[in-house]
Amino acid sequence: MLNTLNTLYLPELREMIAMGDAAGLREFTEALHAARVAEFMEGLDPQESWAVLQAADPATRVEVFGFFDEEQQVKIVESCGPVEASQLIADMPADDRVDLLEEVDDAIVEQVLPLMPAEERRDILRLREYPEGTAGSVMTTEMARIPETLSVREALEEIGRQSQELETIYYIYIVDEGNHLRGLVSARELVAHLGKPNTSVGDLMTRDLVTVLAEDDQEAVARKVASYDFLAIPVVDDQQHLLGIITHDDVIDVFRAEAEEDAYLAGAIDPLVETYLGTPWYTLAWKRGMWLFILSIAALLTVVALRGYEGQMERVTWLAIFLPLIISSGGNSGGQSATLVITSLTSGRLKTADWGKVLHREAVMGLSLGAFLAVLSYAYALLLINGPSPFEKLVIPITLMLVVIAGTLCGGALPLIFRRLGLDPALMSNPFVAGIIDVAGILIYMSVAALMLS
Amino acid sequence: MLNTLNTLYLPELREMIAMGDAAGLREFTEALHAARVAEFMEGLDPQESWAVLQAADPATRVEVFGFFDEEQQVKIVESCGPVEASQLIADMPADDRVDLLEEVDDAIVEQVLPLMPAEERRDILRLREYPEGTAGSVMTTEMARIPETLSVREALEEIGRQSQELETIYYIYIVDEGNHLRGLVSARELVAHLGKPNTSVGDLMTRDLVTVLAEDDQEAVARKVASYDFLAIPVVDDQQHLLGIITHDDVIDVFRAEAEEDAYLAGAIDPLVETYLGTPWYTLAWKRGMWLFILSIAALLTVVALRGYEGQMERVTWLAIFLPLIISSGGNSGGQSATLVITSLTSGRLKTADWGKVLHREAVMGLSLGAFLAVLSYAYALLLINGPSPFEKLVIPITLMLVVIAGTLCGGALPLIFRRLGLDPALMSNPFVAGIIDVAGILIYMSVAALMLS
Repeated sequence: MLNTLNTLYLPELREMIAMGDAAGLREFTEALHAARVAEFMEGLDPQESWAVLQAADPATRVEVFGFFDEEQQVKIVESCGPVEASQLIADMPADDRVDLLEEVDDAIVEQVLPLMPAEERRDILRLREYPEGTAGSVMTTEMARIPETLSVREALEEIGRQSQELETIYYIYIVDEGNHLRGLVSARELVAHLGKPNTSVGDLMTRDLVTVLAEDDQEAVARKVASYDFLAIPVVDDQQHLLGIITHDDVIDVFRAEAEEDAYLAGAIDPLVETYLGTPWYTLAWKRGMWLFILSIAALLTVVALRGYEGQMERVTWLAIFLPLIISSGGNSGGQSATLVITSLTSGRLKTADWGKVLHREAVMGLSLGAFLAVLSYAYALLLINGPSPFEKLVIPITLMLVVIAGTLCGGALPLIFRRLGLDPALMSNPFVAGIIDVAGILIYMSVAALMLS
Repeated sequence: MLNTLNTLYLPELREMIAMGDAAGLREFTEALHAARVAEFMEGLDPQESWAVLQAADPATRVEVFGFFDEEQQVKIVESCGPVEASQLIADMPADDRVDLLEEVDDAIVEQVLPLMPAEERRDILRLREYPEGTAGSVMTTEMARIPETLSVREALEEIGRQSQELETIYYIYIVDEGNHLRGLVSARELVAHLGKPNTSVGDLMTRDLVTVLAEDDQEAVARKVASYDFLAIPVVDDQQHLLGIITHDDVIDVFRAEAEEDAYLAGAIDPLVETYLGTPWYTLAWKRGMWLFILSIAALLTVVALRGYEGQMERVTWLAIFLPLIISSGGNSGGQSATLVITSLTSGRLKTADWGKVLHREAVMGLSLGAFLAVLSYAYALLLINGPSPFEKLVIPITLMLVVIAGTLCGGALPLIFRRLGLDPALMSNPFVAGIIDVAGILIYMSVAALMLS
């Protein structure tokens, strides 16, 4: 429905832009939630978008701009002129503007940075130093910060003054003169004590704070925020200086990005930075091709393994008919085990110390699922194939039983081994486990056949 | 580190419990953040945990209890006696207690419910009616609600009074006498207007609200909250009555649950309700076995397909050697395409209307990746196999080219078709696409071989 509305409003918007109807445009930007205003503007080109933004008041302008997707933001910054760009960027939340500047053409960044207020410029340069994926790279440096000597009333007044520039006022951080983090008080507690406005915030504050270091991994930080149900978490250095905070919306973004990254790895694709349709085809081909190349080495090993059994397959021609069934059953059951272990490790609910339980569990799974698939495949073999005797056909269920057990044990163990070695367990997902099981499956199949049919 | 601390503190805790040291236990529950207190108590049995909780003051008790995992909560409720349980549950957040009661033994729920205050009981019965997966099932009914006639000062005082019972005070909802949602004002705006305490909240409130319906899908709701960077979103019925709110922490939980569900489906496992190690083995075997059974039907089709070419494989025995390489290459490249399309559809950045772009893109990918793998496999064939001539070996690269194109097109198209039919596109992930490509790959391989080698 929004999309229909969107196209319906566009001609009207364009007319206002053409007529220079600043009052009308300003009214449009005020009438709706900033996220909706941004949605309605999706169809405009960068010049048109900038015309609308210019008509808005500065606070609304930066809010609407914040809801554009990054591509659109970059185009506007690159086309609106350095003075306008520097003002807009100075008003943006501290963490978002650093992300944006990373995407903007370097020559333009060089023009824009010197035009910004010194404090903002220093802040940008400092935040840029934190490597991607760390807590420092997603934190914002704008948070409510007060000394512990204030009373409840003074604190609320101070927060009221600071609030225009802050992303959130829901946690208020208490620091000493040296900017060491001493405690935290929530807006809720302040408001609940309005009846006793002279209470000191030092008496209300929580002192046992959960903090993270700027160099901590963003995924671990996000898990911490989620498990404590925090709205934000303070980021400190090793001397407890308050550097910034990471807010709930950044945590949601981190979770979504990490889930997507894991999904890509599980599909044997190097994680994309842009969207699927927005990635150039050669980048996509590279991100897929490199993993396909690695997987092709596993496939090469199947050729090598089978070459050794060419004679046996010539003598017993029906063996080849069951080859795909056997290796896909091993791959599928091993892939399931890998998925379960990787997902549990990623969510933090399984530790490498649990390896004994995992192997026991996967052995039980291998036995039960293997028995089930063995019975099923023996039925297929009895019904579909005429040449060999029922005894000879027993090669199929026996092989399947062994291949499925090998698959579940491998699929369970490999992600644990990867985690233990400090590697991402998601690398040992479905396609890779399947590649390994393909080779093991062929060796098992041919050995069982050699034993039973000799 | 926490785990070490945990075991260090346990004997001390147990001693305090044995000695009935209520003051000491109470001090322990107050000294740390509730989430940490809960962590430290992980090693205690339900009776011991209850002894600690009883020593805490009621607000801390329910907060600490909220950080236990569900299994532990159920055990405590089932063992602490109906009167105590009913008090504890009455104090819990409205959404969490409904989830908990669903897990508790029905006989105990029957004892506990009549002991609860009438308002809480009605609230529980009402929330229980919303089916799982809807906005109604994750919302809480406790939110800050005021009439629009209040002034800023009156509003803050009212919120201060309500705040003990509320999950969040950061958005304050403005309703008329009939509980119709009229607008919203944030705690930040109220605090920012402390200097003008007589301003009416009706003048400050935002009227253009983004709301969701109680029967909306929770995943769509979570995406909405994330895209607007909301702290909470109001849930209404079709007459705009305010029913509840969904808060940022529930949104994080929804995202994590949905990402996990997608990961399980991508690994061909029916999504688990409990943890991997917490699921009984027969449940796990069933959730894996049913998908393996479906995949075994695809495997059965490979047997049927190959049976038709038994004569050809007897004549040209080296064909079987490349069988696993060919079907795994098709499966891997098709699985990549499926992963990309499913992930993009799930994140909302790709629409079924984009099918033309997707197919074009996957055709380009199929051609480039297919050409790459074709060259690679021809090199493998030339180096490793001695029997056939270089011309005969061309069967391999030609087949691979065609199989990879078929794989990428299938992998790209099937999730789109599933979404179009109203089914979950994640069902068409890696293992299923691979199963389909296995059969297609065999048919392509044998047809190319028949044409080139006749």
